[in-house]
Amino acid sequence: MTDAIAYLDPRSGATYPLDVPRWCGDDGAPLMLTPMPGIGRDAIRQEARSLWRYAAALPFLPEAPITMGEGCTPLVPRVFAGATALLKCEWLMPTGSFKDRGAAVMLSLLRAQGIGHVLEDSSGNGGAAIATYAAAGGMRAKILVPATTSPAKTVQSRAAGAEIELTPGSRQDCADEALRQGQARRDGIFYASHNWHPFFLQGTKTLAYELWEDLGFRAPDNIIVPCGAGSNVLGCGIGFSELLRAGGIDRLPRIFAAQPANCAPIARAFLGEAPAAPLPTMAEGTAIAEPIRLRECLGVLEQTEGGAVMLTEAEIAAAALDLARGGIYAEPTSAQAAAAFAKLLEAGTIRAGETSVVVLTGTGLKATPRFAELMGVAL
Amino acid sequence: MTDAIAYLDPRSGATYPLDVPRWCGDDGAPLMLTPMPGIGRDAIRQEARSLWRYAAALPFLPEAPITMGEGCTPLVPRVFAGATALLKCEWLMPTGSFKDRGAAVMLSLLRAQGIGHVLEDSSGNGGAAIATYAAAGGMRAKILVPATTSPAKTVQSRAAGAEIELTPGSRQDCADEALRQGQARRDGIFYASHNWHPFFLQGTKTLAYELWEDLGFRAPDNIIVPCGAGSNVLGCGIGFSELLRAGGIDRLPRIFAAQPANCAPIARAFLGEAPAAPLPTMAEGTAIAEPIRLRECLGVLEQTEGGAVMLTEAEIAAAALDLARGGIYAEPTSAQAAAAFAKLLEAGTIRAGETSVVVLTGTGLKATPRFAELMGVAL
Repeated sequence: MTDAIAYLDPRSGATYPLDVPRWCGDDGAPLMLTPMPGIGRDAIRQEARSLWRYAAALPFLPEAPITMGEGCTPLVPRVFAGATALLKCEWLMPTGSFKDRGAAVMLSLLRAQGIGHVLEDSSGNGGAAIATYAAAGGMRAKILVPATTSPAKTVQSRAAGAEIELTPGSRQDCADEALRQGQARRDGIFYASHNWHPFFLQGTKTLAYELWEDLGFRAPDNIIVPCGAGSNVLGCGIGFSELLRAGGIDRLPRIFAAQPANCAPIARAFLGEAPAAPLPTMAEGTAIAEPIRLRECLGVLEQTEGGAVMLTEAEIAAAALDLARGGIYAEPTSAQAAAAFAKLLEAGTIRAGETSVVVLTGTGLKATPRFAELMGVAL
Repeated sequence: MTDAIAYLDPRSGATYPLDVPRWCGDDGAPLMLTPMPGIGRDAIRQEARSLWRYAAALPFLPEAPITMGEGCTPLVPRVFAGATALLKCEWLMPTGSFKDRGAAVMLSLLRAQGIGHVLEDSSGNGGAAIATYAAAGGMRAKILVPATTSPAKTVQSRAAGAEIELTPGSRQDCADEALRQGQARRDGIFYASHNWHPFFLQGTKTLAYELWEDLGFRAPDNIIVPCGAGSNVLGCGIGFSELLRAGGIDRLPRIFAAQPANCAPIARAFLGEAPAAPLPTMAEGTAIAEPIRLRECLGVLEQTEGGAVMLTEAEIAAAALDLARGGIYAEPTSAQAAAAFAKLLEAGTIRAGETSVVVLTGTGLKATPRFAELMGVAL
């Protein structure tokens, strides 16, 4: 373990030693890690066909990573809105979403620090990834979900043996209850939230290293990412900053956050629009009304001279069907990144000749009822 | 195109030129291709992170393969029934199943031969793969499914823009209707059946090359495969035979076919048991009552000194949950290969110290209702 790396509260500057497990500051603030030096191409473990190729970039190396081949996802060129986008198919992961990057790294590091029982709140891709990687690592997992969650949404986590606790009230009430239980550390359970724990971002940052290698050790010009709590925005921000620091690239790619207009706190803040009450959206994975690292997400968009795009439900639906008609079966949450690519092109913010990566985060197989609805098929 | 390669009826010895598209012999017999020389490791295209690494092993090279990163799936070691199995996670494919190997290769080759409109019959993984790769290749697809098929099963194919035709009667009636339409070639449509066309097996044979490379250019001792129509049994048979011919390996791995006891025509024939009327099984993907290449499948099991295993519904269910509890979320059809691994170990047919690959063919995300039922969760 590198002694210099510590937990960092980026707002107060407070640091905490890395080897004592924690998921927030003493005052409850969300944490990042202190900046790391990054790695060059010689440090890539050529024999690993997974994100563990970039293990040398992690804050420390667990002896036995929990791995099921996550990462090394396809980068597929597709003409969309008249220009070529490179679709990064992040749903080709063990649990069907990009969250596996974060879950594999976070739980591997936590297990190496002695954690054996984890708490999470999510009925979506995050919960499935935590439940599944906990199972793969021989750890216990408890997942809190709102009592109103459709039972179909928790089957994957239940199959992995996770304890599912139904909480009364809204999704926010559920998150609040998870925070309470996490703070209490009842029965030694550790709050390994995909939204809170900085190790999760150490997993999503491997996307930056992977894109860099995919492109022959160059950064793309633009990366367009579906954005809810912002773990891909932040992961790319951290990863490409490390690559810049290590001399692997000479400028940062522009990072763009795609959000549903119905729930777009980060995009609204970036674009200078007044906050608005969230409305339901088919881009469920990005329906995060109060992202805990909103300020840090804005920082990445500003620092990289990227931006934010808000998509209507009709634009998201059209993009999901367009992608599917070309053989790319990604969930609507993902498709908004493709819709944003089209809007950024149209606005002249990005151009057709540039290298633009569109990150598709989740599989369409988790959105069967939604696709049926979009096509007018009764289930 | 290598002139020497031709379509071959392995029973009569009749051959047909490869450059005239066809899917059966003049007498309606299923076809293979004449044996090919295979490739060595120098012929692997190192820059491709997909099955197109092994493109030099195909009967001819299409100028523009239809590809979305299929292949290069993870090989994950897991202790199961007290011994280590190497789980080949073939569901980490664009449509969620191993059928993408066959669909990508078959449709790429057919498109290069001028085919633009394909016919298929399958409401399962095969249909989804054909529909999706046709969409990816700008080809039209028509998929026949029994009228009784749950609408949820065809959402993925519909989203890819395929025409879905409901046929009256049983699954066999549907296959018969597809044969009729395929023979008629009405409107120039071509029967690109994943069960019939020998190019499909040229795709599944890449699994053999990939396992060989995964294992440091060695063959495993044993490969255990869920078996319905047998495209993985035959693909592995073809691929490893080519590797033997090319000098890449010095002996064939033993290939074992796992079938549900409720529908096990190949296993029954291999084990010398009397045919039995098929019963429903949760291993839906392998519920093929009349596999058209039964004889050729038996040939592979015999030639490789492998075997066949029949699994009860209880064994399949237990294996599916066991895998899931270890983080491997594969559909029950796949799980029977893990169950077969345990039975082969117990019987002493294979041993703990050997290198045994268990092929997991489809994602658990397509089997949500089944997993819910196994766990007693009401949806």
